[in-house]
Amino acid sequence: MNILEIIEKKRDKKELKKEEIDYFIEGYVNNSITDYQAAALVMAIYLNGMTKEETTNLTIAMANSGEILDLSNLNKIIVDKHSTGGVGDKVSICLLPLVASIGVPVAKMSGRGLGFTGGTVDKMQSIPGYKTELDMENFIESVENIGISMISQTMNLAPADKKLYALRDSISCVESIPLIASSIMSKKIASGAEKIVLDVTVGYGAFMKNIKNAEMLAKEMIEIGKLAKRETICILTNMNEPLGYAIGNNLEVIEAIKFLRGDMPDDLKQVVLELGAYMIKMSGLGNNIENNKQKMIENIKNGKALEKLVQMVKNQGGDISYIENTDKFPKAKFIEPIITKKEGYIKEINAEEIGKLACYLGAGRIKKEDKIDNEVGIILNKKVADKVEKGETLAYIHANDLNKLEDAKEKMKEIIKIDNQKIGKEQTIFGICK
Amino acid sequence: MNILEIIEKKRDKKELKKEEIDYFIEGYVNNSITDYQAAALVMAIYLNGMTKEETTNLTIAMANSGEILDLSNLNKIIVDKHSTGGVGDKVSICLLPLVASIGVPVAKMSGRGLGFTGGTVDKMQSIPGYKTELDMENFIESVENIGISMISQTMNLAPADKKLYALRDSISCVESIPLIASSIMSKKIASGAEKIVLDVTVGYGAFMKNIKNAEMLAKEMIEIGKLAKRETICILTNMNEPLGYAIGNNLEVIEAIKFLRGDMPDDLKQVVLELGAYMIKMSGLGNNIENNKQKMIENIKNGKALEKLVQMVKNQGGDISYIENTDKFPKAKFIEPIITKKEGYIKEINAEEIGKLACYLGAGRIKKEDKIDNEVGIILNKKVADKVEKGETLAYIHANDLNKLEDAKEKMKEIIKIDNQKIGKEQTIFGICK
Repeated sequence: MNILEIIEKKRDKKELKKEEIDYFIEGYVNNSITDYQAAALVMAIYLNGMTKEETTNLTIAMANSGEILDLSNLNKIIVDKHSTGGVGDKVSICLLPLVASIGVPVAKMSGRGLGFTGGTVDKMQSIPGYKTELDMENFIESVENIGISMISQTMNLAPADKKLYALRDSISCVESIPLIASSIMSKKIASGAEKIVLDVTVGYGAFMKNIKNAEMLAKEMIEIGKLAKRETICILTNMNEPLGYAIGNNLEVIEAIKFLRGDMPDDLKQVVLELGAYMIKMSGLGNNIENNKQKMIENIKNGKALEKLVQMVKNQGGDISYIENTDKFPKAKFIEPIITKKEGYIKEINAEEIGKLACYLGAGRIKKEDKIDNEVGIILNKKVADKVEKGETLAYIHANDLNKLEDAKEKMKEIIKIDNQKIGKEQTIFGICK
Repeated sequence: MNILEIIEKKRDKKELKKEEIDYFIEGYVNNSITDYQAAALVMAIYLNGMTKEETTNLTIAMANSGEILDLSNLNKIIVDKHSTGGVGDKVSICLLPLVASIGVPVAKMSGRGLGFTGGTVDKMQSIPGYKTELDMENFIESVENIGISMISQTMNLAPADKKLYALRDSISCVESIPLIASSIMSKKIASGAEKIVLDVTVGYGAFMKNIKNAEMLAKEMIEIGKLAKRETICILTNMNEPLGYAIGNNLEVIEAIKFLRGDMPDDLKQVVLELGAYMIKMSGLGNNIENNKQKMIENIKNGKALEKLVQMVKNQGGDISYIENTDKFPKAKFIEPIITKKEGYIKEINAEEIGKLACYLGAGRIKKEDKIDNEVGIILNKKVADKVEKGETLAYIHANDLNKLEDAKEKMKEIIKIDNQKIGKEQTIFGICK
């Protein structure tokens, strides 16, 4: 077996055997296979595809390339939640304390954000004192004691995926369904999940720009799950416009806290309830999806969901007074409204454009080393299909730099598109694949 | 313009503009574009192909990446000859002195051999004293004075091709028609040819295994030639079995000398006369192909062709007594016949297998650094379609190592396939593309 033969096989659209995929991943991680050989193979995979077996074998090889979190001591079914990424995506911060309050054990390790989609860990760090880097012992103990912990990925999980992802990014090979699927699933498997609920976002602000591709990705991941003995469910959700109203770290955490207090933007509510209902079901705590949703609504009304967030933040050293009073979060120097001169209906708020603009204001990272400014961001005042009158506020820009503020105001006027004709609301949940 | 966009375009089967190809080649040569990015692009080219314009632009960009030999001071039409490689291919050594004796100016720079096909320069160096590394002044002067010089490629010709070829070799992307075509043509253009006669070999011992692919390659090169204003003719020749009888450096030089004395194996004679007739025609020295062939036969009979070889060897410091008496060439320690126990007809002598076996005996290089043993090789005693009787000699192994001799004897018996049924001679010239 050698890498030339393996490249040649995939180049000629032949199926790679498990041993060949293992050989490639092992060699690539230990540097006996070069970046340029991996690049050629990845481009051949991009263009010629992979079978379900190949994708699963790649996933498992990548999962096995580093440490594997063992959560078996918890003696509980661990259901992990993951999103393929979006703008204004504060789902985890709303959802995980909520399901934990119902008894679903939450042991969540998240990556940091890169590009225009923010990371959950970055958002949680907006709360002063909140420690995202627990050691594994502490992490597991927290899940045992209070049923929830959300930390950053400190273990060396799936290093092959990390290396391969960086390579794909530098050779225009990111948007490959088998490669995206195996990348996501390898990290989930390495982080100890037995069952997985995936939020597969679709639209301008997502990896997958249309439902057809999202379905293909979903099916691929479900198939990997099946072959790797990890029950997997995918919820296809709308990411054409940002989720909820807030984009930016402090702003999103505030929106999530308010959500748990009962102030729930409709799209965010739908996504949280749908994902949550399946997490509860997969944990063995309720088979009826509608009942599960009702239980969640109850725990928001009776304050148990918010209480779980408070418990978690306290447990990880965060200042809970920020949760009790969200006015304590520091604000950006400049907060300016975008006022419309047109009237009509909001036709489009391109989530990718909003994400990039928030990034430009300082809310995200372009490079790994970039520092995030927690204060800046955007608050939408209108969502797609809303009616607007002349002189109404469309959104607020939160900025710490006057030049960036001015640029952002101009850009916002282009991003929020208004039309004369009435427009129907888009669906939030496009479907469920299992 | 950036490399990610260029990779993306080719990945998506779009046509690259001249500026994009120039940007890639420039960046790759000056290392601002990495090997892994080039590898991804090359694999995308391999799988998605290139248009004629793209292939031509790549050829010209590679030709322009290094020095360009200027032969315009010669004030003569320079017709270059090139072969896509074969086993037992001593055509240049027979052909070039022959056409030079008729007045075609020969300014030939050759590469060294790598893999199972031997290089002309390596073969010429079998003649003691023959200098293959002339400086350009000397080279051009030789062409002016005696009408011929054959040297090794010392100039920095088409370094982009060199770099890209090495990369292709290490990522299983050698057998791509646009990439082979542009590689060959870039070197020809950089080495100052105005007109080009290409020997496109076809069969077991060639890059192109079948006539269809060889024709595609030929058409591609002719099209590049047209767009780059270099008239190009391709002769498709049979490389299923080795050309002539000798394989190995001294052995092939001896066969070439004998050829120029009139002892011409039929297949070698056909190839030499066909290529030569077109070289004479393209030089403006005779429009009738059959007449040109007759002129060549004459110059072999009257000794002028051999005399031209002698003149060239003398001019470049070689010991001409070896040409006058080929018995002076040193012989291998062991020369052993392969005797057949079967009778019948020779069905197959796979040129690639013979080339690899000669390599194993020491006649070729596996790695660039390998030293060549001029003495070793194989002399065939039979060719495909020949009748053989029990006890007849099929070939002779020339070896300097007893173990290798034994291995080679075993291997030879497998390579030369004998069948009961009568077999017709294969064509030597498959066709001409222009």
